[in-house]
Amino acid sequence: MGNLVATTTGENVSLVWMLGWTKDPELSPVRYVDASVPGAVQLDWGKAEGWPSHWIGEEFKRYKWMEDVWWVYRTTLPDLKLDAAECATLEIEGVDYSWSVWVDDSIMHRCEGMQQRASIELPAEVFNGQTELRIIVDPAPKSSPEPDCRSQANLSCKPAVSYGWDFHPRLIPLGIWRPVQLTVGPAARLLHVEPRYELDPALMSAAIQVDIVASDEAQGHEYRWLLKDPQGALCLEVSGRLGEEAQGATLDNPSLWWPNGYGEQPLYTLTLELLDDHKRSIDSRVFQIGFRTIRLVPHEKTWDEPSVFPKGPSTPPITLEVNGQPIFAKGTNMVSPDIFAGTVDRERWRPLLDMAQGVHFNLLRLWGGAPVPGKEFFDLCDERGLLVWVEFPLACNDYSDDHNYLRVLDAESRAIIMRLRAHTSVALWCGGNELFNSWSGMTPQSHAIRLLDRNCFELDRSRPFLPTSPVFGMGHGHYTFYDIEADEEVWQIFQRSSCTAYTEFGIPGPSSEAVLKSFMPSDQLFPPEPDTAWGSHHAFDAWLPESHLLLPVLERYFGPMNSLSALVEHGQWIQAEGLRGLFEESRRQKPVSSMALNWCFNEPWPCAANNSLLAWPAEAKRALVTVGKACRPTVVSAKISKFQWHGGELFAAEIWLLHDGMTAIPSGTIRASICCNGNAYEVLSWSHEGTAPMCNLCGPVLKWQLPPWETDRFELHLDSEQEPEWSSCYELSYRLRQKEEKNKRPINVMNL
Amino acid sequence: MGNLVATTTGENVSLVWMLGWTKDPELSPVRYVDASVPGAVQLDWGKAEGWPSHWIGEEFKRYKWMEDVWWVYRTTLPDLKLDAAECATLEIEGVDYSWSVWVDDSIMHRCEGMQQRASIELPAEVFNGQTELRIIVDPAPKSSPEPDCRSQANLSCKPAVSYGWDFHPRLIPLGIWRPVQLTVGPAARLLHVEPRYELDPALMSAAIQVDIVASDEAQGHEYRWLLKDPQGALCLEVSGRLGEEAQGATLDNPSLWWPNGYGEQPLYTLTLELLDDHKRSIDSRVFQIGFRTIRLVPHEKTWDEPSVFPKGPSTPPITLEVNGQPIFAKGTNMVSPDIFAGTVDRERWRPLLDMAQGVHFNLLRLWGGAPVPGKEFFDLCDERGLLVWVEFPLACNDYSDDHNYLRVLDAESRAIIMRLRAHTSVALWCGGNELFNSWSGMTPQSHAIRLLDRNCFELDRSRPFLPTSPVFGMGHGHYTFYDIEADEEVWQIFQRSSCTAYTEFGIPGPSSEAVLKSFMPSDQLFPPEPDTAWGSHHAFDAWLPESHLLLPVLERYFGPMNSLSALVEHGQWIQAEGLRGLFEESRRQKPVSSMALNWCFNEPWPCAANNSLLAWPAEAKRALVTVGKACRPTVVSAKISKFQWHGGELFAAEIWLLHDGMTAIPSGTIRASICCNGNAYEVLSWSHEGTAPMCNLCGPVLKWQLPPWETDRFELHLDSEQEPEWSSCYELSYRLRQKEEKNKRPINVMNL
Repeated sequence: MGNLVATTTGENVSLVWMLGWTKDPELSPVRYVDASVPGAVQLDWGKAEGWPSHWIGEEFKRYKWMEDVWWVYRTTLPDLKLDAAECATLEIEGVDYSWSVWVDDSIMHRCEGMQQRASIELPAEVFNGQTELRIIVDPAPKSSPEPDCRSQANLSCKPAVSYGWDFHPRLIPLGIWRPVQLTVGPAARLLHVEPRYELDPALMSAAIQVDIVASDEAQGHEYRWLLKDPQGALCLEVSGRLGEEAQGATLDNPSLWWPNGYGEQPLYTLTLELLDDHKRSIDSRVFQIGFRTIRLVPHEKTWDEPSVFPKGPSTPPITLEVNGQPIFAKGTNMVSPDIFAGTVDRERWRPLLDMAQGVHFNLLRLWGGAPVPGKEFFDLCDERGLLVWVEFPLACNDYSDDHNYLRVLDAESRAIIMRLRAHTSVALWCGGNELFNSWSGMTPQSHAIRLLDRNCFELDRSRPFLPTSPVFGMGHGHYTFYDIEADEEVWQIFQRSSCTAYTEFGIPGPSSEAVLKSFMPSDQLFPPEPDTAWGSHHAFDAWLPESHLLLPVLERYFGPMNSLSALVEHGQWIQAEGLRGLFEESRRQKPVSSMALNWCFNEPWPCAANNSLLAWPAEAKRALVTVGKACRPTVVSAKISKFQWHGGELFAAEIWLLHDGMTAIPSGTIRASICCNGNAYEVLSWSHEGTAPMCNLCGPVLKWQLPPWETDRFELHLDSEQEPEWSSCYELSYRLRQKEEKNKRPINVMNL
Repeated sequence: MGNLVATTTGENVSLVWMLGWTKDPELSPVRYVDASVPGAVQLDWGKAEGWPSHWIGEEFKRYKWMEDVWWVYRTTLPDLKLDAAECATLEIEGVDYSWSVWVDDSIMHRCEGMQQRASIELPAEVFNGQTELRIIVDPAPKSSPEPDCRSQANLSCKPAVSYGWDFHPRLIPLGIWRPVQLTVGPAARLLHVEPRYELDPALMSAAIQVDIVASDEAQGHEYRWLLKDPQGALCLEVSGRLGEEAQGATLDNPSLWWPNGYGEQPLYTLTLELLDDHKRSIDSRVFQIGFRTIRLVPHEKTWDEPSVFPKGPSTPPITLEVNGQPIFAKGTNMVSPDIFAGTVDRERWRPLLDMAQGVHFNLLRLWGGAPVPGKEFFDLCDERGLLVWVEFPLACNDYSDDHNYLRVLDAESRAIIMRLRAHTSVALWCGGNELFNSWSGMTPQSHAIRLLDRNCFELDRSRPFLPTSPVFGMGHGHYTFYDIEADEEVWQIFQRSSCTAYTEFGIPGPSSEAVLKSFMPSDQLFPPEPDTAWGSHHAFDAWLPESHLLLPVLERYFGPMNSLSALVEHGQWIQAEGLRGLFEESRRQKPVSSMALNWCFNEPWPCAANNSLLAWPAEAKRALVTVGKACRPTVVSAKISKFQWHGGELFAAEIWLLHDGMTAIPSGTIRASICCNGNAYEVLSWSHEGTAPMCNLCGPVLKWQLPPWETDRFELHLDSEQEPEWSSCYELSYRLRQKEEKNKRPINVMNL
């Protein structure tokens, strides 16, 4: 498989689009405004109206009516002379969500779905400078007129997030979200080209084939393809003639592509040219290819279970194996970085993916609630060794066996698979989010799931398919630092869990003061109140009553929050240390556990508080740093039972060497010290025997009586003498017991 | 869908077959013997040699060499004059396993797989009275030459049981196992006809269509179909012309088909005729149709789980719902009633299925280790309300992603689905047996599983598909009365389990003295020894060291077994009471549990001891009676913690009213008494309040101090005053404590 990175197919003719709306599709819009393509109708209309940005305050509420009207994109086709050997094609990469294409009053195409492309050949006579081309976008799909919530999306392939989520306002984007191009060029041309390869079991050679579909006019033409290595040296050259059986070629000793942290990401370049009778190129495609295998394999203890009768099945495999090497998948759930996915280009993605790479992530889950992004996202992941878990657009709903729904799902899922299967970074397909849980109500018998498995099997069977996340063995949650009902911290919950994969777990933290000030009216900034932008930006009752600001939790640990800066500082602290503890605990549970993905990396608009590691658009919270520490290939780690300690208590921590590296670690010494108020107390020295590649090492349990300090925090330092890069420092909360008892107050469990 | 029960397609020309074998497929057999078609090469050859039956003593060992030679069926085609409007077709319904068809030296067809049919049109010139027709059967498929065990079947669709199992000797059948017919008739004829229906959601009407594929010569002909109700009254009449769009028709108020115990099994008859220009019938098909819907639905407590974080998925659905009514599935695992499936006709199946119906079973699992039977089995199930769980031929092996294997599996599975989807009784498709367990090593990612799901989805998506048994929530086992390692009885194990479906559980019992004497040399009859027919007929080390005779278990409970009759009596007793306890416990766990299928109903040859309820060919063991009692729609049941009680002990039993009936039960009285040595002790009277349809009722716990009897058994009677048919009587083991202590001896755990 190879990822298309460049193409020459004639010339692009620029089109100028205008946009209007109508409540009656029989009537034309009354007013047209300038349209940006790709983009979204809401942005064009808001700009024309001179509204403030949609993400400020409660501006998003202005857009509600836009869900229920028809939107008309209009342009006039240019005056062009096409000769007999030329053709003009309208290439539509994606329109959100239900749409039709019209030339004057003739319908050319109709489609339900934002992922399906259309390639429409237009007859020469329409290029007279007067013909009107229109793309009409129907109202947003809703299975019922109310209530305004995600269940309205349960009969369509429209991603459910924009119907309202705990980090996304109710704002349903519509419009042309991917490029639309009018291309004029030779009628003899390439229509679909796709290289594919198969690595031999020893990974010593790659058998490469190129599938070519061309126009009738191109039949009999010669073609040629070249493969160059990442340094640009020519490796293979193959030529042939269209209509004759395609010849493959074998590349010996391919440089293998590895996930981030396990090796390099060499990308080969394959160029295919369609030639005319003079051997001049008249059409071409350029692809990037990374050579790797990928599977889900059972972890080494899988077949020990179950051990008692009646025996159920063993736990299904979730360990990613790349090039024969089991991988501990460290990563995150990536959501759309904007409410309007059509505005997210390569330069919007780049800083996010640079940060993901920088914190040692190797797997990104594209959760089924959000739209599957464009190729720019996958290109960047191919280059950075970021594996991608791709979900189809099903999330937290009971998607039915309805015939029309399944027809659209069939077309949308095929479009997604065909578009993405070439990307080296795509690791697996998944049916969608939490579909087998009570709040969705689907089961393995649901036809939508069986259809998706069928399509993945037919179009891309070498990649794993998961029906949903979680499946048996895996776990989602928790999404708080402290579970009020269970009266325990998530560290304790994780330490007694034994999931094969933790594919969602989150701890919310507030955005920085600067971000908060960027979207919140200054008179609402402090104290935070539910009926302000704090509420509409998810600080209160977003999920649990205390989500996502966790105000009662913060006050339980730290007392009253008397200022915005105290709120941000403490909120980001528990998020940072909390997530570090969860990532490291997931790693400790290797090999039974082989995956840790926090919920979530980023957000589509500025949340007041959110589980994300970044505030919108791309500002790191403190947690990004600690998560990066927790995900280093080798980490000296402490298993600590709780976050807050008291004067006089016996502090305890089990010391571990977490190691995902592919080389062995020799023996060495690790020193533990506790630091407070500028004093360091050496409490333990661990002379370890070293460890094998990819193996953790469990060390001693440190115990130390905490003195009666005057402080609200202390640090545990774990220093590796052999490699300072492996050292860790945990910042923990401290209280004197009598003070703690005085301030402690019950937390009301509201609306649970 | 309708099940084909009759056909007229010209006349059948009888063929006389001879059989020979060769070690070199290039050479012809040296000797030919009479062949029975359908049948098996082993039976023909053994008969010609005058050998004793294969199931006597160790006769089966004679047949080993037959696995590895080529078998040639030979016949001479008759001298026939075909006119231009006639054609001759060789209809091959099934050959086991890899085979080819030759006319003189020309190959006409090649096939790997026993389920695929062939319809071969033969040219007129071969009917000259001299042309030789041969069907050549290749050696049995083996993925490796040794060891001789089931893993040799892991690259083929040959059912694995005959490679050796704990109830089946190593004896691999080969040959023509389904009918082969030469048919001569009009060239204008029907090729494939299939009625199908869709019930409206209220089950008030059935929209019926008939799909017709006919020969080229039949195009333009008129056809007609009639639907008659079970009493023979005409309901619908539709006519049309081939080549024109088929017209459907709607049946109002269809009588619904119900599983055994839930209602009647009305079967409608649909007759389709192909007409000539004079409206005379020239070809016809007759079908039986039962109208019903079937689904797997979550039980009512499914969505309460999981309740804690990290949350996994809810348990997948396994409750069968027929016509909107959840069913408690009571049944068994049916294995091939003969090593040679080709000998099993309708009259062999009939007594088995009569017995299954008689003990209130409503679901039969056709386990993936054995061949899927012919239509005669499914016809009988359609008539008796016996739902059938059909598995594809995968069992206890790691079937690979190998290309050729998947190609054959694709063809075989399509053949099975197409052949059986018309049968009302077919309840669900399943990938195979215990594939996700350690002894198999497959996972949901295995391509074979994904391929089967794909084929079922494409060809028969209205039926449920399970990847294997067990999946998450379900359980297999135990297969003994007393687990020596765990030191507990299976009653205790089941009483603390909470499976959604118990799809295999077994307790072995010996065959009767008459059956034992039928196959065992008289000098080996007693005492049982491993190196005799007892061993080769599975009494020793068949699975656990004590399987299946359970001699150490019997001696633990009852002391030394001093005679054959004592052995049989005690062995059948613990099997009978043991299985009753497991069936009733499964029912007590409703609605979480909704399925109880014991392993197994029958056996393919006479086992000395086996988990089966029947000894070969069709002799009921005592357990059949107690299982039948446990499966009555309404049962007064006792939850008893153990089988053997001691003098002076406090006997305890929780009383239940188990109710799967579709009507409510009014209030009533149940009396419990304990009977021993002719004395009855009234110990409890329970005035219950009645129960809703399909709902169990938990009653009081009876407690009673057992006196120091001189006996080895006592009975617990539970008598319903309102309906004596619901009453139960349990026979339990009794020992005086001092006697018990004296005799008790440790059991060695061998070879575990």
